[in-house]
Amino acid sequence: MTLRTLLLSATASLGLAAQAFAFEPLTIIDQGSFSAGGTVTTEPGSFDHRSPMDTAGQSFHGDHAYAFYQVPEAPRSLPLVLWHGAFQSGKSWETTADGREGFQTLMLRRHFPVYTIDQPRRGRAGNSTAAAEVSPMAFDQLYFDMFRIGQWPEYFDGVQFDGSEETLGEFFRSVTPNTGAFDPEVVSDGVSALVDRIGPSILVTHSQAGGPGWLTAIKNPDVRAVISYEPGSGYVFPESEMPEPMSGAAGTLEPVAIPDADFQKLTQIPIIVYYGDNIPEEPTDLFGLDNWRTRLAMARLWVNAINARGGDATLVHLPEEGIIGNTHFIFSDLNNAQIADLAAEWIEAKGLGGLAQ
Amino acid sequence: MTLRTLLLSATASLGLAAQAFAFEPLTIIDQGSFSAGGTVTTEPGSFDHRSPMDTAGQSFHGDHAYAFYQVPEAPRSLPLVLWHGAFQSGKSWETTADGREGFQTLMLRRHFPVYTIDQPRRGRAGNSTAAAEVSPMAFDQLYFDMFRIGQWPEYFDGVQFDGSEETLGEFFRSVTPNTGAFDPEVVSDGVSALVDRIGPSILVTHSQAGGPGWLTAIKNPDVRAVISYEPGSGYVFPESEMPEPMSGAAGTLEPVAIPDADFQKLTQIPIIVYYGDNIPEEPTDLFGLDNWRTRLAMARLWVNAINARGGDATLVHLPEEGIIGNTHFIFSDLNNAQIADLAAEWIEAKGLGGLAQ
Repeated sequence: MTLRTLLLSATASLGLAAQAFAFEPLTIIDQGSFSAGGTVTTEPGSFDHRSPMDTAGQSFHGDHAYAFYQVPEAPRSLPLVLWHGAFQSGKSWETTADGREGFQTLMLRRHFPVYTIDQPRRGRAGNSTAAAEVSPMAFDQLYFDMFRIGQWPEYFDGVQFDGSEETLGEFFRSVTPNTGAFDPEVVSDGVSALVDRIGPSILVTHSQAGGPGWLTAIKNPDVRAVISYEPGSGYVFPESEMPEPMSGAAGTLEPVAIPDADFQKLTQIPIIVYYGDNIPEEPTDLFGLDNWRTRLAMARLWVNAINARGGDATLVHLPEEGIIGNTHFIFSDLNNAQIADLAAEWIEAKGLGGLAQ
Repeated sequence: MTLRTLLLSATASLGLAAQAFAFEPLTIIDQGSFSAGGTVTTEPGSFDHRSPMDTAGQSFHGDHAYAFYQVPEAPRSLPLVLWHGAFQSGKSWETTADGREGFQTLMLRRHFPVYTIDQPRRGRAGNSTAAAEVSPMAFDQLYFDMFRIGQWPEYFDGVQFDGSEETLGEFFRSVTPNTGAFDPEVVSDGVSALVDRIGPSILVTHSQAGGPGWLTAIKNPDVRAVISYEPGSGYVFPESEMPEPMSGAAGTLEPVAIPDADFQKLTQIPIIVYYGDNIPEEPTDLFGLDNWRTRLAMARLWVNAINARGGDATLVHLPEEGIIGNTHFIFSDLNNAQIADLAAEWIEAKGLGGLAQ
């Protein structure tokens, strides 16, 4: 029995017949998970074995990052750290909502070791030193609009997102709440500790992770490149040369001032930023779309600021390259294999794609 | 370059030198993740693209389970569903706190397809229809006592748990909070939906998952066997024949009444329950230990009740088999490869270990 027939029969016997594609076997030479960074707090008093539900004298571990990693055979030397956006966890990068391979597996196939993380205070890294109230937030339609699948309930023509009800349900179920306030310093500290542990690596950030991704690269010289899909907050600029805030239907987007010397560190590594389709260039009163108009505009200023100071930043607005229909989740869209190729080719072009010796 | 030397060099270049063991390559013929079950709620009113931060007319997806799965080459036909306990997520089953292979990988090596889940309202399945306050709970010393690593700060002699500070820190960081009230019906509904999707399978439950594991097996005839490591709550009994509650230093353990016909369903599948070491047989005022005295005693009654009604339940108290030093986390203890062998051998003995055709 060949692996392929074994695969097909196993897939069928596992009831996974809905998967229309055949999975090519992968050889994994290491996998596992761990925590990185975080803090320990301790309550005053003495611990009593006889009343341990009293927290006196007890400690708490929180604010760490969680990572699940896999190393494929013939690995490249620099692993990818896949860092989800707001309302999301590592699940963002796994199987797509319509059941195809996500970036995690696509990048293993391209011989990158892959670390898929849950940032501090999210998902499996839920222990937070800051308390939070978690309430169900009915935001599915906000997500549909804001993540540019369409304008609820209409899908954009040609959108790179499967139109079935099942897919949309699975997409909405990738949402998971913060278990403590989102804090760019806390999450970048956690990811920087992860980079300390794994060594030189490439950050791949999405949306809300954009901002703390820059902070991580500033904190840790072992971040050797950053690929950012639609960074959505935390556009850092040198405090001596701040752009104006940008206002629109989704509120005011404030650039974040950082010391010039910190900004300068971002000029030392190659950076690429991707934005997808259906982002208006002119103001509109549609919140979910206008949100990205200002962000794309700010990203253009940001890339220019990096390059004006000697850096190597590229902004790719995919429709300008003839790649159309991408949502805010570029890396899990219907064309995500092409998107993965673009990323791998960029890494190679920057001389960072070599195999481990 | 052989895979082994590649592995060693890759491991070194990834800064994973702390891992003392060499990982044998694994061939994976499918992997990915998905959600299962859950509900959808909708707010009254109409959604407005111009004010989407208002939840009017918007829906919410919550209370689903999350699973990451892998299928090894030459897979057995029945996959394992690895279901964590209280304060834990799927991380329980991944790399052990001291960096060895956890049950997830150990069972792949034994040719089981493995589904590692986060139950509804936990980890990556954090969206809950019930609101929750999440506060840092300083319970590290409670865990140390209750999970029978020792009596803080002393480790038990011969405990199957690495004594380094690093290991203990990593262990504590596997803790992650509920993002909605723990509800045995909600979590068993989620896992039953997962079993509907994947077909006939074997549940492997830990601690708090014990009770909802029985409920899942009652709800879903595709649960073909249950392996339960130290079930800690939800001991279900036929309502016509209830045992007395059991009291001790950790409070009163109440058996849970269910319809006789439901209990009878548990007699239709093989079940094995494991308990580890350092559980006192006589009452003690030490909370973390006495907690398990009553639970082990209740488990004995439970297994007897199953078997008295024609079932096939086995209770293995590991020290009675000469296997000593196990904590509450039997499957990640230092002897977890032996524990994995015991589970695989039991599955085979029950005629459920065959390969997929």
